[in-house]
Amino acid sequence: MSDFFQKSVQLPAFPQGYHLITSYIEQSIQEIEVLQIGILQVFLQHTSAGLCINENADPTVRKDFKTFVNELIPENYPRFVHNYEGSDDMPAHLKSAFFGVNLSLPIRQGKLALGLWQGIYLCEFRHEGGPRNLLLTAYGTK
Amino acid sequence: MSDFFQKSVQLPAFPQGYHLITSYIEQSIQEIEVLQIGILQVFLQHTSAGLCINENADPTVRKDFKTFVNELIPENYPRFVHNYEGSDDMPAHLKSAFFGVNLSLPIRQGKLALGLWQGIYLCEFRHEGGPRNLLLTAYGTK
Amino acid sequence: MSDFFQKSVQLPAFPQGYHLITSYIEQSIQEIEVLQIGILQVFLQHTSAGLCINENADPTVRKDFKTFVNELIPENYPRFVHNYEGSDDMPAHLKSAFFGVNLSLPIRQGKLALGLWQGIYLCEFRHEGGPRNLLLTAYGTK
Repeated sequence: MSDFFQKSVQLPAFPQGYHLITSYIEQSIQEIEVLQIGILQVFLQHTSAGLCINENADPTVRKDFKTFVNELIPENYPRFVHNYEGSDDMPAHLKSAFFGVNLSLPIRQGKLALGLWQGIYLCEFRHEGGPRNLLLTAYGTK
Repeated sequence: MSDFFQKSVQLPAFPQGYHLITSYIEQSIQEIEVLQIGILQVFLQHTSAGLCINENADPTVRKDFKTFVNELIPENYPRFVHNYEGSDDMPAHLKSAFFGVNLSLPIRQGKLALGLWQGIYLCEFRHEGGPRNLLLTAYGTK
Repeated sequence: MSDFFQKSVQLPAFPQGYHLITSYIEQSIQEIEVLQIGILQVFLQHTSAGLCINENADPTVRKDFKTFVNELIPENYPRFVHNYEGSDDMPAHLKSAFFGVNLSLPIRQGKLALGLWQGIYLCEFRHEGGPRNLLLTAYGTK
């Protein structure tokens, strides 16, 4: 037997940067508590933000993500043609594709089976991206 | 109860670049219409092409993907040892790993629950990659 | 009907670099042999290592991954603030996020449906990362 749960979540608007959203997600899909083995699929319905998993403790890690990635994929890159939706727009599309917009996380005994230091980041690549929409889909066996 | 469907899809050969394949995929796995909640897993069985999700409208976005990524991971990178399968080969391997070859997409009420601007890209990294093979696996509950 | 299997795997410690672990994984979850259609989810419970799929044959490909990525995300990047856990630490966090820590692989007729040249890489980004922990979750229909 397997159960399926699905829930839409609208995150608050975040500034450009990397933001821990593990709690938002866990609190939004408490239904997973009944699953002994399962998967939580987290899907971000956007093209200028992303998702990843990384360190949940020291915030300087998230600061360095912003510094490095903004330099790697810069706003002033001279050869963009798509440059009329803001200087942060085309870099945001590229960053979104590099980081990705979907994560699959294992569920074990009713909880996300993350490693000790792992947290889920919303990667907001625009200066004013607004509230971002996630779709959470969980499935597994009791 | 959950249903599983699986289908092989051979895409047409594409030139190097980023190509929208959302319709190819939707038309290949119409069985998902019966699923109220589910997941579509899209898997590319190659090492020199990739998959990602990004803007489905303005084609200049896809043009800029090609410009930027070809400059980030260039054909003339002098320190490659693996340089005997064509100058586009080793860069294609790296690009494939950065973008990834698998996507998990939520299904809701019989359709892919993509955001308004989201499309699925085949990222062809070789100049003559030939037809690329996908395996689509869908599962969920009616 | 669908079946779920889940297994923890501790990999041996690897040096910094890209290492084929397809066999480790296949041998750890032989239960998938009963699944006609399914998915194997591979999840790495770390923030300074990653997973990807790429060429399983010529080892020079993996050597060039190491050369290129170490140059793209260098240890001596001057603007890191998080620089007190070793010069290889903050670059390892970034690499882990770029490559990702989860893979979803289709199962067909009891086997991973990888393309001919595809293998699963453990990407060890630290010089002394130690043994890395994976959680394998498989599900599907007989």
